[in-house]
Amino acid sequence: MNVTVQFVDGPLSEAPPLRVPGAGAIARFEGAVRPMEEGAVIAGLDYTTYDPMAAQELERLARRVLEEFGLMEVHVVHSRGRVLNHEVSFRLDIASAHRKEALQGMDHFIARMKQDVPIWKAAVPA
Amino acid sequence: MNVTVQFVDGPLSEAPPLRVPGAGAIARFEGAVRPMEEGAVIAGLDYTTYDPMAAQELERLARRVLEEFGLMEVHVVHSRGRVLNHEVSFRLDIASAHRKEALQGMDHFIARMKQDVPIWKAAVPA
Repeated sequence: MNVTVQFVDGPLSEAPPLRVPGAGAIARFEGAVRPMEEGAVIAGLDYTTYDPMAAQELERLARRVLEEFGLMEVHVVHSRGRVLNHEVSFRLDIASAHRKEALQGMDHFIARMKQDVPIWKAAVPA
Repeated sequence: MNVTVQFVDGPLSEAPPLRVPGAGAIARFEGAVRPMEEGAVIAGLDYTTYDPMAAQELERLARRVLEEFGLMEVHVVHSRGRVLNHEVSFRLDIASAHRKEALQGMDHFIARMKQDVPIWKAAVPA
């Protein structure tokens, strides 16, 4: 499968690197929870997803970015539920022939995800 | 150390993920050898570095990108010697507050490295 989408309860654990024969560029982005959210000190974030639409939208976005940027593979993992400060809540792995399309596809995917996919976060007070 | 540069003989092995308290964005780029180089089928690449200038230039570039893009950490590992097809010869780890500067700094670093740093590659015939 050149596109996968997965939700995980709580923080993401470490994952082995993506290895794709013939790919010259392997890019990974991880999003971690920062102890400040809109100027307030927090303990973490609670993620809520609207199911099954969130997964459907992520997969549709992943396929669109794969085609638009000519990528070889796109893999997405996102937390739901509570993720504490410094823990990882999102991971995006992309493989492509060259660097440019991997980084552009990555930036595009994340921008669109934040805008369009029904995943909400609420601050956990410190 | 928020900037490190390292050369490794042969292909890079797996590395643990970068974890930086307070960073919201952790980005990793890995470059792997592709079995085609300028239209010819190859078995791998031989990397030659001009020492100690290659390491000095990489470190200077890493510091400049760190400052210019406001990054928290920049870590670079590059192979020298023989790296076969599908093996990894370059890794760049960046941590920053937000996504934008991590991906822009990453793209900028790699473009400048290819242009300015005395690391050469020669095809190993298939």
